[in-house]
Amino acid sequence: MATLLSANLEPTMNRLGNAARSAAVQLASAPSAQKDAALRAAAAACRREAEAILAANQRDLAAAEQRGLAPAMLDRLKLTPGRIEAIAAGLEAIAAQPDPVGTELARWQRPNGLDIARVRVPLGVIGIIYESRPNVTADAGGLCLKAGNAAILRSGSESFHSSHAILAALQAGLAEAGLPASAIQLVPTTDRAAVGLMLRMSEQIDVIVPRGGRSLIERVQADSRIPVLAHLEGLCHVYLDQAADPERARSITLNAKMRRTGICGAAETLLVHQAVADRLLPPILAALAEAGCALRGDAATQALDPRVTSASEADWSTEYLDAIIAIKVVPDLAAAIAHINRYGSHHTDSIVTDDAAAAERFLAEVDSAIVMHNASTQFADGGEFGMGAEIGISTGRLHARGPVGAEQLTTFKYVVRGQGQIRPA
Amino acid sequence: MATLLSANLEPTMNRLGNAARSAAVQLASAPSAQKDAALRAAAAACRREAEAILAANQRDLAAAEQRGLAPAMLDRLKLTPGRIEAIAAGLEAIAAQPDPVGTELARWQRPNGLDIARVRVPLGVIGIIYESRPNVTADAGGLCLKAGNAAILRSGSESFHSSHAILAALQAGLAEAGLPASAIQLVPTTDRAAVGLMLRMSEQIDVIVPRGGRSLIERVQADSRIPVLAHLEGLCHVYLDQAADPERARSITLNAKMRRTGICGAAETLLVHQAVADRLLPPILAALAEAGCALRGDAATQALDPRVTSASEADWSTEYLDAIIAIKVVPDLAAAIAHINRYGSHHTDSIVTDDAAAAERFLAEVDSAIVMHNASTQFADGGEFGMGAEIGISTGRLHARGPVGAEQLTTFKYVVRGQGQIRPA
Repeated sequence: MATLLSANLEPTMNRLGNAARSAAVQLASAPSAQKDAALRAAAAACRREAEAILAANQRDLAAAEQRGLAPAMLDRLKLTPGRIEAIAAGLEAIAAQPDPVGTELARWQRPNGLDIARVRVPLGVIGIIYESRPNVTADAGGLCLKAGNAAILRSGSESFHSSHAILAALQAGLAEAGLPASAIQLVPTTDRAAVGLMLRMSEQIDVIVPRGGRSLIERVQADSRIPVLAHLEGLCHVYLDQAADPERARSITLNAKMRRTGICGAAETLLVHQAVADRLLPPILAALAEAGCALRGDAATQALDPRVTSASEADWSTEYLDAIIAIKVVPDLAAAIAHINRYGSHHTDSIVTDDAAAAERFLAEVDSAIVMHNASTQFADGGEFGMGAEIGISTGRLHARGPVGAEQLTTFKYVVRGQGQIRPA
Repeated sequence: MATLLSANLEPTMNRLGNAARSAAVQLASAPSAQKDAALRAAAAACRREAEAILAANQRDLAAAEQRGLAPAMLDRLKLTPGRIEAIAAGLEAIAAQPDPVGTELARWQRPNGLDIARVRVPLGVIGIIYESRPNVTADAGGLCLKAGNAAILRSGSESFHSSHAILAALQAGLAEAGLPASAIQLVPTTDRAAVGLMLRMSEQIDVIVPRGGRSLIERVQADSRIPVLAHLEGLCHVYLDQAADPERARSITLNAKMRRTGICGAAETLLVHQAVADRLLPPILAALAEAGCALRGDAATQALDPRVTSASEADWSTEYLDAIIAIKVVPDLAAAIAHINRYGSHHTDSIVTDDAAAAERFLAEVDSAIVMHNASTQFADGGEFGMGAEIGISTGRLHARGPVGAEQLTTFKYVVRGQGQIRPA
């Protein structure tokens, strides 16, 4: 658990990679019952070792306070008995999900008698690079295991000791179920150079999943030689259409912005059709202000409420993750769609309207992973979608778009069964 | 069509990218009938302009001969009236396929009444970088169009004029159907710097598909800031198991190696179980030699036929694309699987056996896009799979694995329909 010198880093990472590759081979053919037993044993170990995990977390918290980490960050880092129970329950929930591996996605016969099946298989070795929340260690490790993948986790330096304590519980679960401990590994150093090495281990890692702020994701996307499942920011919009029901407009906006401001599905920008702005906006602005939300708007919005300060161009592309909202009055539906496609992060965007044609146009033309009609953007969540746990919401277009759960951590192969067929000239 | 100076390259590529992005927005909502009409009109234009295409091809051929291109390369480059007819027929075959866009992949209701649908949508703008075959211009452009994507094509310098003549036919088809000509564009220069620029146009290109030799693919994978659908080489294996039927072993090996040696599904290495090598191999070696195939084997194979020269370590990882085969006698099935997973390119591998358990183990444990039992590796082809045309066989694990047709050139979005739902605290 000691921080390694950089000189030892490359062989260490290589060893991790080779161990993960071997574990992945074993996991690929591990029966569902064995993987689920490991997940349940890991949950039990989390509960059994709760005190050790809390003690490790205390070390992280003390160091973080000393370095003057912001209260919001300290809260993300902090574990409590309740949060450890949630981690354990999360592992059990993953165990209760169906195993995606082995599913026949399609099967057909060719006229020449060849039988072709498309079958789900694990991705292989997944490298996950994340920041402060220690629970990601269990969520990400558990989901990778469920889908038959080996995981190499690189936790943030703030949660270094907490993550290692949680890892110990995960590895205890693996051992109890007879699976290799190297199925889930943690990079044993806070040296940032380890990330650079991970991104070039293309022989040993099949996919990189970065979880964190914009600078981390951008660095990973720029430097990685390995395919990346990008989880970019959630710059989500609510658009109140000309035909929006006023009460729905109010409750959805309030919920989308204020239920929890720090999650990627929280709305950051409110767009309003000009024909109804005068009528719809004032009560919504008042309710947001009352709930403690800072209001930043264009001139039309400022004219409606003195609490609205002037929004700058930068506000349309800022993910606040805080009790701040940017508000703009737009000439029509087309302008709302154009604004979202230009400034949004292709994550989750919602239209509030009673006009079915307007809704269908919005759903078709907004180019985001999740598009919604008359619903809060805060539903952007694998659990809320009924997909079980998630690593995050992918804003990339390839492979996995939207919530990434165990199923999205698989690929497939074609299995072709013949009776001696050869291809004619 | 003139070669641009590098000084003009960046603005030119930017203009191409912006035009493609606009075209992609239009294509995303273009009805199937309009896209299919464009494909059929492009086929008609290919036939109508056959002489102009042949004349352009003559310019390419003359230049290639002057530079002393190898005969095999000249043959790849050469167009004939028959090959132009095949290009036209290929475009019509793409038109006849079902439109993947708009398909509902899944739809379910949540207990809170939210209705969630996963719907296929185009990927956006696809950049395709390829080498000498001019028909890729039509195949790739046509498949992108079918799936509602805009294409930026970068043809090899050898086929520069041929590709532009084919492009003219494609753009004529687009115009006739009322679609923007910028739906399919060709980089108007042979300057290699254009590839470097393409790989960084992440705002304007969503996916890069390289088609060509190993050095091209490796360069693209190393330099691209855009997700890559990799089409690596096909280092395909045939494994003759202890329980292989001798006649099947012979016919499948001959077909997999010699039907066409220059395609990615051609077998490059033959593995044979040691218990049956003495009995199975001699007639196969004789037949291969008679068919003009050079034989390179390990000591055990050399002992069986004087025509077998010594295989070096490099042979196990060489994609010959030629009438050469590497042959190795292995102790058992597990050794065959280990050899394939170590030296293969995860493309297509086949076992010949009458032992069902051995077959199932091979199909499960060989980690390739396509695994086969008692069938020739030369069936690795989108058309043979019944998927219509293909851009190639993806050896990557993310998004598309195996044959890449129109369906694989799409992504999906989640469409969530509510009645005012907000997420509980």
